[in-house]
Order: sequence, then C-alpha cells, then structure tokens
Amino acid sequence: KMLRRVLFTVLFMGALPSLAEVSQGHISVVLLGATGDLAKKYLWQGLFQLYMDQVSSGHSFTFHGAALTALEPGQRLMFDVLKKLACPPDESPNRCAVLKDQFLKLSQYHQLKTAENYTVLNREIETLLRQEGLKEAGRIFYFSVPPFAYTEIARHINSSCRPPPGAWLRVVLEKPFGHDLESAQQLAAELTSFFREEEMYRVDHYLGKQAVAHILPFRDQNRQFLDPIWNRHHVERVEIVLKETVDAKGRTSFYEQYGVIRDVLQNHLTEALMFLAMELPANVSRAEEVLQHKLQAFQSLRGLEKNSAVLGQYQAYASQVQEELQKAQDYISTTPTFAGVLIHSDNLRWEGVPFLLTSGKALDERVGYVRVLFKNRAYCTQSETLRDAGQSQCKAKQIIFYIGHGALKTPAVLVSRNLFRPVMPEGSWREAVGQSDLHIFGQPLSDYYVYSPVKERDAYSVLISNIYHGRKDFFITTENLLASWGFWTPLLDSISHQPLRLYPGGVENQHLLDFEMVNGEVAFTLAEPVELLNPSGLMPSDYRTIQSKFRQSPLVSAWSEDLISQLASDIEKTASRTVAHSGQFHLALSGGSSPAVLFQRLARHHYAFPWKHTHIWLVDERCVPLSDTESNFFSLHNHLLQNVRVPYFNVHPMPVHLNQRLCVEEDRGTELYAKEIMALVANASFDLVLLGVGTDGHTASLFPRSENGLEGAQTVVLTESPVKPHQRMSLSLPLINKARQVFVLVLGKGKHDITTLLSRVGHEPRKWPISGVSPSSGQLVWYVDYEALLG
Amino acid sequence: KMLRRVLFTVLFMGALPSLAEVSQGHISVVLLGATGDLAKKYLWQGLFQLYMDQVSSGHSFTFHGAALTALEPGQRLMFDVLKKLACPPDESPNRCAVLKDQFLKLSQYHQLKTAENYTVLNREIETLLRQEGLKEAGRIFYFSVPPFAYTEIARHINSSCRPPPGAWLRVVLEKPFGHDLESAQQLAAELTSFFREEEMYRVDHYLGKQAVAHILPFRDQNRQFLDPIWNRHHVERVEIVLKETVDAKGRTSFYEQYGVIRDVLQNHLTEALMFLAMELPANVSRAEEVLQHKLQAFQSLRGLEKNSAVLGQYQAYASQVQEELQKAQDYISTTPTFAGVLIHSDNLRWEGVPFLLTSGKALDERVGYVRVLFKNRAYCTQSETLRDAGQSQCKAKQIIFYIGHGALKTPAVLVSRNLFRPVMPEGSWREAVGQSDLHIFGQPLSDYYVYSPVKERDAYSVLISNIYHGRKDFFITTENLLASWGFWTPLLDSISHQPLRLYPGGVENQHLLDFEMVNGEVAFTLAEPVELLNPSGLMPSDYRTIQSKFRQSPLVSAWSEDLISQLASDIEKTASRTVAHSGQFHLALSGGSSPAVLFQRLARHHYAFPWKHTHIWLVDERCVPLSDTESNFFSLHNHLLQNVRVPYFNVHPMPVHLNQRLCVEEDRGTELYAKEIMALVANASFDLVLLGVGTDGHTASLFPRSENGLEGAQTVVLTESPVKPHQRMSLSLPLINKARQVFVLVLGKGKHDITTLLSRVGHEPRKWPISGVSPSSGQLVWYVDYEALLG
Repeated sequence: KMLRRVLFTVLFMGALPSLAEVSQGHISVVLLGATGDLAKKYLWQGLFQLYMDQVSSGHSFTFHGAALTALEPGQRLMFDVLKKLACPPDESPNRCAVLKDQFLKLSQYHQLKTAENYTVLNREIETLLRQEGLKEAGRIFYFSVPPFAYTEIARHINSSCRPPPGAWLRVVLEKPFGHDLESAQQLAAELTSFFREEEMYRVDHYLGKQAVAHILPFRDQNRQFLDPIWNRHHVERVEIVLKETVDAKGRTSFYEQYGVIRDVLQNHLTEALMFLAMELPANVSRAEEVLQHKLQAFQSLRGLEKNSAVLGQYQAYASQVQEELQKAQDYISTTPTFAGVLIHSDNLRWEGVPFLLTSGKALDERVGYVRVLFKNRAYCTQSETLRDAGQSQCKAKQIIFYIGHGALKTPAVLVSRNLFRPVMPEGSWREAVGQSDLHIFGQPLSDYYVYSPVKERDAYSVLISNIYHGRKDFFITTENLLASWGFWTPLLDSISHQPLRLYPGGVENQHLLDFEMVNGEVAFTLAEPVELLNPSGLMPSDYRTIQSKFRQSPLVSAWSEDLISQLASDIEKTASRTVAHSGQFHLALSGGSSPAVLFQRLARHHYAFPWKHTHIWLVDERCVPLSDTESNFFSLHNHLLQNVRVPYFNVHPMPVHLNQRLCVEEDRGTELYAKEIMALVANASFDLVLLGVGTDGHTASLFPRSENGLEGAQTVVLTESPVKPHQRMSLSLPLINKARQVFVLVLGKGKHDITTLLSRVGHEPRKWPISGVSPSSGQLVWYVDYEALLG
Repeated sequence: KMLRRVLFTVLFMGALPSLAEVSQGHISVVLLGATGDLAKKYLWQGLFQLYMDQVSSGHSFTFHGAALTALEPGQRLMFDVLKKLACPPDESPNRCAVLKDQFLKLSQYHQLKTAENYTVLNREIETLLRQEGLKEAGRIFYFSVPPFAYTEIARHINSSCRPPPGAWLRVVLEKPFGHDLESAQQLAAELTSFFREEEMYRVDHYLGKQAVAHILPFRDQNRQFLDPIWNRHHVERVEIVLKETVDAKGRTSFYEQYGVIRDVLQNHLTEALMFLAMELPANVSRAEEVLQHKLQAFQSLRGLEKNSAVLGQYQAYASQVQEELQKAQDYISTTPTFAGVLIHSDNLRWEGVPFLLTSGKALDERVGYVRVLFKNRAYCTQSETLRDAGQSQCKAKQIIFYIGHGALKTPAVLVSRNLFRPVMPEGSWREAVGQSDLHIFGQPLSDYYVYSPVKERDAYSVLISNIYHGRKDFFITTENLLASWGFWTPLLDSISHQPLRLYPGGVENQHLLDFEMVNGEVAFTLAEPVELLNPSGLMPSDYRTIQSKFRQSPLVSAWSEDLISQLASDIEKTASRTVAHSGQFHLALSGGSSPAVLFQRLARHHYAFPWKHTHIWLVDERCVPLSDTESNFFSLHNHLLQNVRVPYFNVHPMPVHLNQRLCVEEDRGTELYAKEIMALVANASFDLVLLGVGTDGHTASLFPRSENGLEGAQTVVLTESPVKPHQRMSLSLPLINKARQVFVLVLGKGKHDITTLLSRVGHEPRKWPISGVSPSSGQLVWYVDYEALLG
C-alpha cells in the first residue's frame, strides 16, 4: 500500500528518527472538507506547518483529506491544493522541499459519505499501524464542513472511528456554533451525545491571532506593573475593534442569517474581552484554571439591553441581498453590518469601566485591535510646551494589542513609554524599530514600546499546533460557548426590530457611525435627519407631563419614562426638604416591577439624594426569605440598595423570617416591625410612602375583603394574597394614612381598567383597598402613565 | 466743617438727585489702614468705583480713611493716594473727573488710635448726619490691618461706633483668619463677642475674581447641559491652579509663618473648589442657600492625610529667609512654597473624582484657572485623520474658568465646542474672537467657545460692590472659615516635618514638580536622586516578611504596612479558595483599631474578593447601639461594608440591641446569634476568624478570669470588660476553636510586652484568654508586626 511505501521512504532518507526506537506513537489527522475554501486557504498550510514543526518530535503522522466527492476527482482536487503549499520564509528551502515531498506522500484522499466509508477509513488506519508496528497516539478529526453536517459526521466517527483505548480523539469544530442560546444548546447537546467534553476543540480563530493569544501571557509576565493599575481606578476604557473595508457581497446567503454581532462580536471580540477582563489565574498555562476564570468573567457581565448597542447597515447591502437571494425590490433586511456595543462588568475590579466592542463592514480601514486606555493620573506642573515633550507623564497612557492590518500592518503589542517597559518573551517577540512618523491612537509611534512577533504566524497554524499540544484554553468549551450565547442572545432578541443606521461605506461614512456612551447606554452622536425634526427627545426640560386631578388628589401623568423621571425627582425633592428640616427621611417602599425602574433611576441619576440620612422601610413583603428572588426586599436590594449608600442601620426589611420560620404568628414579626416603626419614626408618620395598585384594586399587601389591615388599631398585619406566595406582611391602611406624603405609581395598559374604575368609585376599601388611601393630614399624589390612564 | 461743604457742593452741582427728596440714607465707609499697601493698590480704587457706580443710587456717602499715623502726615499720605485714582476706560473722562473731585471732597483722614479717637469719629458722623438731615443707612468698617490689631479695633467699634438702630453695621475683614483651626476658632470667638455673624464680611478676594464669581451663575444658567454630566460618571478630574512666577523675596517674614497651603490653598483654591463641588441651590442668588450648600460640600470632603500632598520649596527660599529674618546659615525652613493636593469628595456625585489643588511660587508662568476635564464618552468609528478634525466628539471635552494672566491674559470662560454652547449673561460676558494660533490645554483656542467679561473688573471692586449690596455669599462666614480650617489643619499638622522637594525655579523646574495620583494619594513622578538608590519602595514584590513560628504556630512578621498587605492578601486567598470549594465564605471579624487599617486595605485593593459570597460575622461587640461610634459594627461598617458589596443578607451584626434595650439577658441576644450561626455556618465552624490581642491578653471580648466563654458549651456569651463600655457580647473560645482558620493580628510597640509574655507561657486561658486559642482541627496563624515582636 501507498502509506507503507511512504513511511519506508521517510525512514530510508534518515530525515526522521527511527520509528521503532523512539516513536511517541502515531497521529492520524483527518481533515473533513479537505477541498473547501478554509482548507485551501489555511488548514492544509497549517497542517504542513505542524508537520514541519513536529517532524522530529517522535510522533509519526498521516494526513487524511476527506470530502463527499468521489475518490478520483477528490484526489486530484486535493493534490492541486497540496502542491501549492508554501515554504515559510524562516525555513531553509532545501529542508522545506524535502519535507513538503514527505508531507505529500503522507497525505491521502478519502471519500467519506456513507457509514461504510468511515468503517473503511478506520480499518485502513488500523491496518497501517499494525503493519508498521506503530503504537497509536491519537486521531484528530477537523470538521471544516457546514454545521448541518456535524451531527451525521459525529455519529459516524463515534461509532466507527474511535481510536483504541489509550489513544486520544480530538474533534475540531468550526463556527458557527448555533445562532442563539437555544440552537447552541441543541447543537451542544447533540455533540455531547457523541463526544466527551475533552475531545471537542471548538475553533475561534481569533484565539490563534498572535496579539490576542499574547494577552494572557502579557498580563502574567507583567504582573508587577499591571497589578496596581488593571482595575476601574486606573482604566479609563477598553476598545475591542475589528474594522473591515470589504462588504458582504457574494456572502449574503450566509451573512443575512447572522449579521455582524453573531459573525464577529459574539465570538472573536468577546473572547478578546474575556482575556482582558478575567481575573488572572495563578498559573496561566494551566488550561483548566484559565477556562474556569474565563467563565467567572462571563458571569459578572452586566446584562445587555436594547440601548447597549448602536447598529448600522451599509447602503448597498439591501440590493446585494435582493440580488443574491432573489428577493423583491422592496425587501428590507434587518441584518446589521455594523455594531458598537457597550459592555459593563459588575465585579469590583471593572465596575463602571466601559468595554466597547465595535465591528463593521464597509468601513474606512481594515484593522483589528484591543486598546486599554488608562486614566491620566498625573498633573504636570510646568506649562504646556513642556507638558507635550518627551515621555511626559501627562501624555495618554495606553496598552494596545494590535491584531493586524491598519497602519502598522503587523501584529504588535504597544505600551506607552510613560507606563512601563514591558517584559516580553524574548524568543517570540522583539522590539520593533523605525517608522517614527507613524501616529497610532493620536500619538507618535515613538511614544510607545513596540513589539512584534519574531515569526509572524497564521492563526490556523497556531491553533493546529495547540490542538496537537492539547491546549484546551485556546478553544471554546461548551460552557464557554453557552455562556457567550447566554450573554448575547437577549440583545439579539431585543434588537431584531431595531432601526439600523444606513451608511454609505468607506471614508464617506464620516462621523455617521460615531457613538457616545451615556449612563450605560450608547447612541449615535449625530442624529438622523428625521430625528433632527424632533431634537428634544433627550432634554430633561422636555417633560410632557400633565398635571391634573384624580380622585380629588393631584395627578401627574406622562409616558412612563418621563413619569418615572418626574417621580424620582419629586422623591428626591421631598427627601432633601425633609432631611434639611428634621435630619432624617423615612421612606416606605413597595415591591413589584414598576418600582424597579424607579429604583434604578434613583440609583443612577440622583447623586444628591440624602441616602445617608434616609431610612428605608418596606410597605409590604412576601413571606419568603429575604434573599429569595420573590422577596420584595431582594428586588429593592438588587435595584437600589446595592448601588447607593444607605447605612446598614437605616435599612428595615420586614421580619418575615424569624427563628428560621416564615411569618409564623407566634414569632410576632408584625409586632416587632410595629415597635421598630414606633421607636424610629416620629408619630409613626412616614415622610413618604410609595404605593402601587393591583388590577384587583389591592395596594401594599392589602387585598379586597382582607380581614386584617383595612381598619383597626394594628399597624403591621399578616394578610393573604389570592396569588402565590399567599402569605404576606403589610403596613395597615390606617398606618399608611398617617403618612405625610403618599405617592401612588400606576404604570401600563394592564392597569387601564382598574384606573378607569377608580376614577369613578368612592371610598370603598373593602372592595378596592387602594380607594381607602386618604392621608388624614398628609398629601396624596397619583403618578399614572398615559397607558394606564388612556388605555 | 469740610464735610458739610462737600455735600453742599455736590447738591449744588446737580450731579446727584436732591438728597432731601429721594435719599435712601447715608453710608459711611471707614477704611482702617488707609495708607497701607492693599489700600493703595486696590481698596481706594474699589471705593471710588463704588462711588461712581452708586452715585445715583439714592444713597449718599462719606469715606473715612483711618490709620495710626497722626492727622497731618496721615492726611497727606492718604490724599497722595487718592489723587492717583484712575478713571476706568469705559467711563467718560469728563464725568470721571467730576466724580473724582467729589470723591476727594467726600473723603477725610482720621487718626484712629485711642478709644477717644473712635468716640470722636462716631460723634463726627452723627453730627454731620444731623446737620444734613440725613437718615443713616449703615456703616462699613474695612479692616485693612494686620490681624493682631483686629480685637482692639473691633472692641472700639463695638463700644463706640455702632450706628443707631435701623442702620446696619458691616465690618470687612482681610485674611489671614488664623493659621490653623484652633487659632481661627479663637479669633472667631473674639470677633463674635463684638459682632453678630451678619455684620462680618470676611474677604477672600478670589471670590471677587470675575471667573470665580461666575462659576455658580454659570452652573445655574447652564443646568440643562450640566445636570446630566456634572458628576463622577462624566467628570474625569478637576484642576484648580494658581501658579506664580514671583517668589517670596521681601515677604518672607509673613511667608515663613504661612507657606503656600495657608496662603493660597486653604482659602482661594478651596473656595473655588466649593463652588464647583457643592450641590447647586435652587436659587443661586439667595446667599443663605448658597452658604448652606457650601457648608454641606465641606462636610463631604474626605479627610486629608500626609500622602494627600506633594510639597516643594524653591532653592533660593532658604537664603532669602536667612537674610531677611537674620537666621543662621544652617537654618532650614520647612515652609512649602509649592503644593499639589489631591482632594476627594465622598458624596455620590463626586465619589472617586480627583480634585487637584496646585499652587506655587517661582514656577514657569503666572496663571490661575479652574479646569473641569470630562471623560471622553465617544467612540469615533472612522480612522484617526477624521477623528482629529473639526468638532470631533473624540476630542477632549473641558470647561475652564480662566482666572487670569497666562496665555489668555484675561479672565475667561471656555467650553469645548463638542460639549455645548453655553448660556452666558449677555450684558456682562461676550464671546471672544481671534487668536486662533493659541493653544489652551492641548487644544487650539478655536476648539472652544470663549467668553470674556465685557468690563474687566478688579476683584476688590467686585467685592466692595457686594459689601454694599449685602451679598454675604461672596464672603467667608464663620462656619465656612472653621469648616475650611477643620479640613486643612490635619494635613498641616501631619506635614510639618515632611521633606520638601527643592526646585530651582522658573522653566528649569522641568518635570521636577510633576506629580501623580495613586490610590487616593499623590507622589512626585520623578524620584529624588536619593530615592533612586532604593527604588523598590513601592513594589508589591518587596514584602520583607519573616516567616517563622510563634507558640508552635506559623508566624508572619513585617513592618505593619507590609504585614497588613500580606494579611489582606492571605484573607483574599482563603476567601477565594473557600468560595470555589463551598460556594460561600464565613468570616468573623474583630473590632478595634488595627483591623480598621486592614478593612480599608481590603476595600481599596482587593477587587477580586468574593464579597458577594462572603458572610460577615462579628467576633465580639460592645453593648451599645450598632450606630454608635463605639460599636465594633459601626467601625466595620464605616471602613469596609460601605465600600464593598456584601449583600445585606450576608451581614450579621451581633444582636446587642433588642427591644430597644442593650444586652439584657432575657432578650436572649446570645441565643439568637448562636441560632443564626447554627443555621448558616456548617458545623458552626467559621472559615476564618480574625482576632486581636489586648495588653492584658484578652481576645475577642473574653477577658482574663471571665466567667463566661472560656469553656463550656455556650457558643455566644455576655461578658464584662474591665474598661468601658463594660458589657460585651462575644463568641466563646470553644466556638472560635472550631474555626477552620484563625488569624491573630498584633500591631504596635504597645503590644510588645504581651507578645513577649505569650511567647513563653503555655495554655492558660483563665489568665490570658488568647493563650486558649488553639483550633481543634483548623489552622492558627500569627500576624505580628516588628514593633510588637521586637519592641
């Protein structure tokens, strides 16, 4: 057989050590999709590089190209590719020529279509090994095929092509790995039924880009410099960017299903983000630790919302889609070709630091980079002339992992000279010289220490080498993949009907795609022409609130967002006035979803709120532990308390959980809470009580026909809700009516009926408890949004 | 008498409205120190300006210069000054000449030395008014005299020169107002015994600088733009700077006692800071509101420490002092002539924003400014060429109140064009044009909207006008003054023996005075030559810790700062490991002063600490309310809990305050705490207990010969301390010994004796409770600093 002949040839030439003596075992590499684009462009070259690098490792190799094509034409197609394999510039041409010849002889084409084909392949490998007396080290199956083919191939490999015990199996998978969380889970579940986690190598070729692959080693080797500054106190922002000049022409059948977020952000840019944001493991070469820390970094990302992203589409895209996918002239694609996404991590290291992920097609330049911009912590006392000279501390400080292309044209690591001289691995990175007239991110190149790889290596070469070495941290684990989809899917869902900004492409884009961050959201800087007609959208002075009367009390009404702003601002005013007057402010808050928005608004926009002097009370509580997600306190804690500075002593959750029991009468939680109120709140008269209304007219946890709390002397009561959890604790109506101010917040279409009804009925608390709210000497104000008011 | 003649002349000329008809009353201005430098340079000119401005106001005026000099020479000296009064360029020369003539006639010199002199002055004023039939509106006494003369003059004015009821008295005081909190309090107390608060006008002439005086109006008039961005989320830093080229030559007798902080920072720069940082009152023209908000802003400043400042002295200063003050050749002055101070406000609006106050003599330029630099929130998608053009959103965004001198040479307000076009009062500020080649803070002037005053006015003119109008918010109230000294005095005390960096002066200073902020501290960027010999000072790798044994357990020892770092880091490691293993970490902490430093370290440096999964327990507590400053929990709350994110549910203060009573046996607080521990901590075995040691060998609140807690089954006990407050609650020794890890922290010389003793004694918990700490299956580690270990 041919293979035997080849091995003999190799031995005979003496280019390899004697297999019989030092063999580490044999590795069979099977490339599925051997004549496809990716294989042609990168994979065969990567395998050839692997062979050149490892020919003396003690392992022996055979390479099996496979495809659906029949043997003869397949063979011809494949060897056409192999003949064109290039010799790397750092390899001696002689050695390379010899090795290339050997590589060709070690390579063979197979048609892999039926179950039988796989069985035959397996038998051939076994036969060869037996004949040559070789121990099997392992098998690599590289899936360079469309994902719909994965399951079928995986099943065949699992049933027919597993190596014998003691040898490993590595299957290499190329994206896309699903297009949202659900599809990714489904695909992962299928694959998991055939392969063990450690057998799967999901490729994100960005992890093979030299500058990206060096982020963790760089952080590790420069711990002494980075430890003090790698945090929110020093990092101003992080930009992770992949800009392309090309557009999607010719690829719209793929692109139209994915778009820029699925194509670039969910995978490549997110992986780079993780390398930056994750806590540094003690040992960065231990894949297990790296992967675990990466997962933790995922967990601390703040959820994305609609306004976390700006989206665009180049103008020609629509017609390209119409043409390539045979769509009608009026077909409108909602696929973004440009996205800028603002990401926040909620851990203490990164809280508040903006991570900007940006990518797009048809932009003005091709470039990829990860840029960490530090806050400028220096003050330069002498005047500006000096300030700008030399290595001034007042110049911008940045670290850039330059992935490639752009002005520099090579991968590079750049560190501002006024930061530190980085430690770089001498063998693989060297300091670059020259090009002094180049400017990178607003500074001359001479302001940086610049390092570039000694040997520039293609990402696939790097990855194939890592597959060979079993470095799983260069690949996407199932957990990692699902965490990423779990993070991105809510955004993808929420933007599916977002308007896209159209851009002409290239330099003509001008400032059209510039965007700005405000309060954790992003928006394009330039308004659309149509938006310019109504430029008032963002002005706080623009409250379109109606002031009127409802049930004989003041009514404030507006669209819900404006209403919440107004309410938050009114609460702050009341708080400031009360604290100025009496030194403290007693605020009783309701649970539910409407207040959550209010709480966030208070936490994020009201810096002058006198939290230090505010006491927080609960209007009502569900009988669950306080740390249960169902608990009103838990929601208050999450949306408000965690983000402001209310002293611990001023926080008064309802004691629904005493002696490890929930709302047991004899634990006397209601009495305890009543006592606390009596002790701290003058006359038990809260400064402000915030209420909501249920569709049945309940308020606080006072339900229609409740036995407790609608009247009588009791101030805090146990009640029963018609919905789960049934047991509740609540302030009583008489206590609420002692308050100096009561604000009732009513939001949404769902409340229209009860709102209408309430506008007509009188004081009937047994039917509609909310109708009994009528502060005896305080003020009642209704905050009802247009949807609740007008339906 | 002369005055009568003058008044008749005025009436006769018709330049004033008929006094008899519309007089608003008469104002007597008495300038004490009428022939001194300040009076010559600014005050007479300011009074003349007042006269020109108010001549038609309906008030009549007389101006009384006074000094210790005898009448005749004093008169001559004073009129020499008056004759040189300038006419402002915007005044018609004719009118000015007439008014100047009148002003001279309305001005008179008095010798004010004895009590009798004051009585005579008073009588003269009364006589004049009676003769002219004028109602008295008020009297202004301007103290342009050294502060040691204040009390004497004040006493005379109070006893002899008060105007009759219905007319006001305003005394104007010039700094210095003391040189620290105590002296300022003393001076204030003296003055308060003579004058009511509303009668005193303490001048800080910076409040009369047009750019400074416009800060609040600017914030008010531009609320719509500033409201969303005037906070920590948008402001990168604030610089408040007064640089001088002159040195202290000729003034060292004054300067040597004060130095740059007392001379410039405590007053001028602090006042500008307050205008920036204070919450904006609803009505900025209401002095009362402004002053109250300013005081609140003082209260939220974080206390300064030694390392909040960098200090310098120009090289020639020492010899100038030696010469002018007749000091010996080896006399060393510790007076700083340069200071850079980093200030933080702890309110939610400004938390984390650095406010840099800088001033110095013998620098390279004379300039004063207040600069608010905003974070750049924009991402400019297209490449750098575009990024720098026009009003790009990616350019720096700043607002500058340019006080004067420097490149611009006039007061000005500058707002980056990519921020907003500010609203400016049209009558008093106008848009400046031209000078396009000028660069201000790294940007061409054309990048800003630039406004300068229509009429440039000297600070004293502005202030004298404000005295006339009774605008107290342009002056320093007693409360304001004491708040400022209260803020600065601790720094002044702590730096009195700090080394000063010597600088050559002028442009030669180069980068010598550049400084950097790290972790709320500042340091010069360039090390001193002597520091360069030992450059390792700041490296975290430089722990000089000794690892050894103490009482058969591991001992870690180092200088206290390093020890705290090591301990914090060990606690974090334990926490991370424990959370990784069991999902939560139960940490029991002791009170006292040593842990406070540790808590701060944990809060400020350990971003990866798993607080979210950490439960905080108390080792012991004093029987006081939790919000009492004596409470261990209070200190823990202040130093740690307020600054990290431990969920409310995970915080477990000891229940020493139940039913509004403190540690009453029948309230069963100890049982409650024991139950809570049993419910949440597996096997009641804390993951880590942090203990201290008292000089008597107590630990937790377990004192020698305690009846409770040293043995037995009880886990939480009430104990008695020999020192107040006597009643305590404490974990028992048996419970502590169930912990998986116990760290004991011992700091300071005061603990040397007990440390030595403990190294010798065995297990004798009844004598020395700490000797009974011996975890049954856990680990004990001692953290003892060199001072405690070695004495």
